[in-house]
Amino acid sequence: MGILVAGTVALDDVKTPFGKREKILGGSASHFSMAASFLAPVQIVSVIGNDFPKAHLDYLAAKKIDTSGIEVSEEKTFHWKGHYEYDMNVAHTDETILGVLTKFNPNLKEAQKNFPFLFLANIDPEIQMKVVNQMTNLSFVGLDSMNFWIESKQKSLWDVLKKADALFLNDAEIRELAQEASLIKAAKIVQKNGPKIVLVKKGEHGVLTVTKDFVFVAAAYPTEEVKDPTGAGDSFAGGFTSYLYSQYLQNKDNIYSMPVIKKAVIWGAAAASFCVEEFTTEGLEKTSIEQIKERCHDIHEFTSFEKH
Amino acid sequence: MGILVAGTVALDDVKTPFGKREKILGGSASHFSMAASFLAPVQIVSVIGNDFPKAHLDYLAAKKIDTSGIEVSEEKTFHWKGHYEYDMNVAHTDETILGVLTKFNPNLKEAQKNFPFLFLANIDPEIQMKVVNQMTNLSFVGLDSMNFWIESKQKSLWDVLKKADALFLNDAEIRELAQEASLIKAAKIVQKNGPKIVLVKKGEHGVLTVTKDFVFVAAAYPTEEVKDPTGAGDSFAGGFTSYLYSQYLQNKDNIYSMPVIKKAVIWGAAAASFCVEEFTTEGLEKTSIEQIKERCHDIHEFTSFEKH
Repeated sequence: MGILVAGTVALDDVKTPFGKREKILGGSASHFSMAASFLAPVQIVSVIGNDFPKAHLDYLAAKKIDTSGIEVSEEKTFHWKGHYEYDMNVAHTDETILGVLTKFNPNLKEAQKNFPFLFLANIDPEIQMKVVNQMTNLSFVGLDSMNFWIESKQKSLWDVLKKADALFLNDAEIRELAQEASLIKAAKIVQKNGPKIVLVKKGEHGVLTVTKDFVFVAAAYPTEEVKDPTGAGDSFAGGFTSYLYSQYLQNKDNIYSMPVIKKAVIWGAAAASFCVEEFTTEGLEKTSIEQIKERCHDIHEFTSFEKH
Repeated sequence: MGILVAGTVALDDVKTPFGKREKILGGSASHFSMAASFLAPVQIVSVIGNDFPKAHLDYLAAKKIDTSGIEVSEEKTFHWKGHYEYDMNVAHTDETILGVLTKFNPNLKEAQKNFPFLFLANIDPEIQMKVVNQMTNLSFVGLDSMNFWIESKQKSLWDVLKKADALFLNDAEIRELAQEASLIKAAKIVQKNGPKIVLVKKGEHGVLTVTKDFVFVAAAYPTEEVKDPTGAGDSFAGGFTSYLYSQYLQNKDNIYSMPVIKKAVIWGAAAASFCVEEFTTEGLEKTSIEQIKERCHDIHEFTSFEKH
């Protein structure tokens, strides 16, 4: 069956120290799906405008991503325009046109309700709740959010977190949600009050993972030339979730074991490292599953040491 | 013989969100020595004023740190006053009184010249050069510096780097020295033009190590409550250098092997994690060698994962 992802499919204008691109494929669901497509069938639930290039849909379909759940509406496609300074850890938003997104309110088809894995990308937590409540056969729910929802709809966010198995937030967001400056304490607070797994994305500094049983501190791959960090977080989530799905196919009861979660984190970090090497999803497009695996081995080599 | 460390012994006023302390033991050589004392005999080369409390010297001596190389001068002891905001990654300097430090110009005794290990803490690179040039039997030279010397005496700094085996800088400093925004590229540039080992200190994000043969990305121990980050970098250097010294005693030819350097980095990270848990050197004072070893095991547990 695979992974159902509800999120945005967008047109982005992006400027970084390495160049500038206009109306390129963007959106959380696009990045997530590209990264997840190596290990799992993925179907996107989203909405686009009639200005959206068919070439972008074909591009996703070429990776065997099911785009039949993307509605086409009369309004404009969601558009994000942003830039990065030399410190590429921070995205600066220049313009956001919500367009079709203001009416995004998915009613799932029967086949969609039956997916075992769901990823709720960063959208209104009330919409996230509506989607998860339509699902009938879930084994895993991943969820992303952002400062905007933490500030404007925190009660709804905590409500939907009770339905999530894994939460993906960056370091500033987890501190804000927990109201705690220490990252490890903040992650533990959120984990106790919400999802089984809290994944704190720290950009070039890697990922901190907290469950009730263990803490895992994972390094990012030390990429020499980051061209465009857009989508790194969603690519990480896509890699992580698809790795968990591949293990679920082998043994449904095993996906919350420490070795599996750790390997899923590293697979996600490897996928994200290919994302940032090129603009939009081009880095992942030209990558093979063998290259992702090789990069997991590289991260092992870069981080492993003998016991004292 | 052990490690000779040339650096500052100071009186600090420190304010953090967890409290305020005045005239406490500070200085790069103090922090380095406390961290190194678990695995190596250490002698300090420094200068203090006649206002320096004897209790502080006794405190160092209680850890078997040799303070006989600390000159006493007529002027005031080097004084640093600073504070930290909630983001404790950045120290804000409120006042610096150089005092005795303006005349620090060590002439080593014969016995000091014969030490096999030397650590040149963050002082004028011309003084660092003068010290290293007096040594007659060196197997290892570690060196720390800072933005002030990178900007004001860069030529002298590159000169003394040619004599160093390991360079300790933080992420902003290595970027400035290499004139390169990418951290991994910056570290590789400096490594090619200077010391065998470049150690980039990233605070709560750990340490990046680059040699001509390998890259090692080490996590910091995820400390829940950082009370005072002052001295964390020097404690890391002290832990690292002393671990290398302990291996040197067993096999002189082995100290630049990858497994040894990796374990030295983790030992340094563990020592630094005890430093930041309390003000000044109190965290390391009450720590045992078994606790440092245990924390190395914890870091192993927090960071290790099975190969894909």
